[in-house]
Amino acid sequence: MTTEAPHGSYHMSPDEFRRHGHDVIDWLARYMEDVGDRPITPTIEPGQIRARMPDSVPEQPEPFDAILRDLDEIVMPGITHWQSPGWFAYFPANTSPPSILGELVAAGLGVQGMLWSTSPAATEIEEVVADWLVDLLGLPEPWKTTGPGGGVIQMSASDSTHTALVVAREQASGEDGKMVVYASEQAHSSVEKGAMVAGYGHVRLVPVDDRYAMRAGAFDAAIETDVAKGLIPVAVVSAVGTTGTTAVDPVRAIGEIARAHGLWHHVDAAYAGTAMTCPEFRHYQDGLELADSYTFNPHKWMFTNFDCSLFYVADRRPLIEALSIVPPYLRNEASESGQVIDYRDWHVPLGRRFRALKLWFVLRSYGAEGIRHHVREHVALATTLGERIDSHPELERIAPIPFGLVSFRHVGGDEATDALASAINDSGWAYVTPSTIDGRRFIRVSIGQTHTTAEHVDRLWGLIEEVVGSR
Amino acid sequence: MTTEAPHGSYHMSPDEFRRHGHDVIDWLARYMEDVGDRPITPTIEPGQIRARMPDSVPEQPEPFDAILRDLDEIVMPGITHWQSPGWFAYFPANTSPPSILGELVAAGLGVQGMLWSTSPAATEIEEVVADWLVDLLGLPEPWKTTGPGGGVIQMSASDSTHTALVVAREQASGEDGKMVVYASEQAHSSVEKGAMVAGYGHVRLVPVDDRYAMRAGAFDAAIETDVAKGLIPVAVVSAVGTTGTTAVDPVRAIGEIARAHGLWHHVDAAYAGTAMTCPEFRHYQDGLELADSYTFNPHKWMFTNFDCSLFYVADRRPLIEALSIVPPYLRNEASESGQVIDYRDWHVPLGRRFRALKLWFVLRSYGAEGIRHHVREHVALATTLGERIDSHPELERIAPIPFGLVSFRHVGGDEATDALASAINDSGWAYVTPSTIDGRRFIRVSIGQTHTTAEHVDRLWGLIEEVVGSR
Repeated sequence: MTTEAPHGSYHMSPDEFRRHGHDVIDWLARYMEDVGDRPITPTIEPGQIRARMPDSVPEQPEPFDAILRDLDEIVMPGITHWQSPGWFAYFPANTSPPSILGELVAAGLGVQGMLWSTSPAATEIEEVVADWLVDLLGLPEPWKTTGPGGGVIQMSASDSTHTALVVAREQASGEDGKMVVYASEQAHSSVEKGAMVAGYGHVRLVPVDDRYAMRAGAFDAAIETDVAKGLIPVAVVSAVGTTGTTAVDPVRAIGEIARAHGLWHHVDAAYAGTAMTCPEFRHYQDGLELADSYTFNPHKWMFTNFDCSLFYVADRRPLIEALSIVPPYLRNEASESGQVIDYRDWHVPLGRRFRALKLWFVLRSYGAEGIRHHVREHVALATTLGERIDSHPELERIAPIPFGLVSFRHVGGDEATDALASAINDSGWAYVTPSTIDGRRFIRVSIGQTHTTAEHVDRLWGLIEEVVGSR
Repeated sequence: MTTEAPHGSYHMSPDEFRRHGHDVIDWLARYMEDVGDRPITPTIEPGQIRARMPDSVPEQPEPFDAILRDLDEIVMPGITHWQSPGWFAYFPANTSPPSILGELVAAGLGVQGMLWSTSPAATEIEEVVADWLVDLLGLPEPWKTTGPGGGVIQMSASDSTHTALVVAREQASGEDGKMVVYASEQAHSSVEKGAMVAGYGHVRLVPVDDRYAMRAGAFDAAIETDVAKGLIPVAVVSAVGTTGTTAVDPVRAIGEIARAHGLWHHVDAAYAGTAMTCPEFRHYQDGLELADSYTFNPHKWMFTNFDCSLFYVADRRPLIEALSIVPPYLRNEASESGQVIDYRDWHVPLGRRFRALKLWFVLRSYGAEGIRHHVREHVALATTLGERIDSHPELERIAPIPFGLVSFRHVGGDEATDALASAINDSGWAYVTPSTIDGRRFIRVSIGQTHTTAEHVDRLWGLIEEVVGSR
């Protein structure tokens, strides 16, 4: 029944892996050297990559050199270069050399960290880096795994927020269809999506102030109105750094209102969490000790490649109660002793790869000072760009710059704003995100890509001046 | 404000990456060469890895060589070697050289595939490999992205099953608390967990026959009983290869009953899906054209490192309707044209890494014949081991062997069975999973690790004979 294999097997040997592995490393090193020279967005039509690929899996093995050649010929023409230092779009999704090498080792070890016992190092290193980050970001001490809370790595902030909403739902009582989640009008779409996925009947988007931060009084009033209607307020998500403009919700005021009404308070600091490595930004997260859960993504600004979203809870018991199901093939002595963490019970999936390894590599390779240095550099560059915009009569900043995002528009209106964004993006080497707020167009310039420096922001400003004129 | 960086930055340069990258590749090649000689499970106590690590992030950068040294000194003593050819525990969680190199490239490119437009190649290659697998596994043709359905890569089968249950819930009407999900008593824990996370009120575990497959008649009867109670039957999950014993539920009969009562039918072939590369196993999936969704994990038996779970739907519209939320910063021309797939709308998370790349590398590097060869070899080895067990008076097989899992016990009872499992696991080089079924202990021997050959299974049999005697 079995077919004849070349050399007895179809596996690439360790020696072949060594040779091809060196080739791939060299290929990536060259990519790091020239990514800034590549046009950031591909100029292709839908279906064009697909059309270059055959209709079925090849019957026979192909040599690895052919695969690597197709990486250049088929894949690269369809790649958007998120790792270009001219990347000012969305938020950064940074990778970095030590992170890449950590991911490589994790892929090679191929362990499952679903239980402590299925690979103890995967769990314990995750505990340690989660605890390290509590101190590094100035988060509440009880969030450490050595206290009543703890941190776990999930895939994305969407998963973390969804998990928080599931635990909150389980803590509440009543019909799911009557339950309400609150967030500001500027909250990330993952709040609405997570609430929908978790079966909540209502998402109440609370009005914001002129800085796009949630109006705490409006939140309080919304709760009263909903209770009067017979609905059940269950959870609130506040943002430290919204996606639209990095607005900072009043975490303490929201936390106090949430406590008074018995709501679960989840804080979404997916992007801005990394800034808290620097004490001067921590006033933005004042009141975290009133939160029940919190998420931030090292895979955004902390030089750790996707996926790596930290999710913290102040008390791990309701989380584990909501998510623990133990079939017989997963029973084991270590788990039953209660001495270990089984991270399987901290999120929806069962299997999990060794994501803590790359974060450990990054934290040690940069050191706390290295991360702070680059964060401060990015924020300083954003601040400087904001000053240039403020002093230019054709441009108008629309929001404060607490971190690395600059939000502005052309005073000439939506068409002029879109034309400016297009001119920047058509340059090929810089890429920004045009968006809409309060029914008007604006441009988001997010400064935080791993290798973005003053040179790149100056060049971006030059490009803007080409369109709007020098002052 | 910013601190002085050594050489202007804290980043590892491309040249340093090249040097350290070669070191890591060489380290992994050596690991591949010697993993079979390492004791599979570590002999450490809870907290022992943690105790070797400092209490906080180092302030200053550490040299990469120090990190690599700690990989040997801190990490490796706590690793369970899932990639050992003596791995017979749980199911395999295989990696392979081409998969590792695909993951490495994906980490280096660091693109986000949430929208087609955020990196078109990531989406189109995912579409293509998902469509390739429809043919390679003999799945229904309409499941291709070129038809009404389509496949997407999720993190785990738990995520895929949870997603199916959310879509099913949204298709139904009534109170979540009255909704029922059906699965066999032998279904994976992810069904109960997914149903709980999705807010279903009830999970009905349907009795199984003497081969541990769901009794279709009992499923039909359970629906009638629930309807009579005023509950709302919404979804059923059938298994092609249960986790306990790789039992195969009657997919066609379950599908017909599900259609008759308007239930969503999700098929979980997480492990066994890979076997369908060989036509001789496809009778086990007869009736798939009646399924609404389906999942299988290349990260189990298809030599593709975790995470890589394929999720297919027969009709993509209800999936996208349930999961699509479009904030202004994600609007773009390509999406609005309707000409592209935006995989963000196919699962809970927003961000997604380029997981299709490693699967593409694996499929091309092995070719269809290479995958079939190793699958057939594993199944043949399992069949031979089953025959040896059948012919040994002290051993008793408890379930058929449709794929690569051998389930058996010692005729001397639970203690003798556990003692045999312990003797195998204490050997250090082979690792099996002791479990419980029908209140009695048994041993699961899963033959499917990438590098497991006859040599390893013979050696395992020798070890079993050392305990129970030669026949």
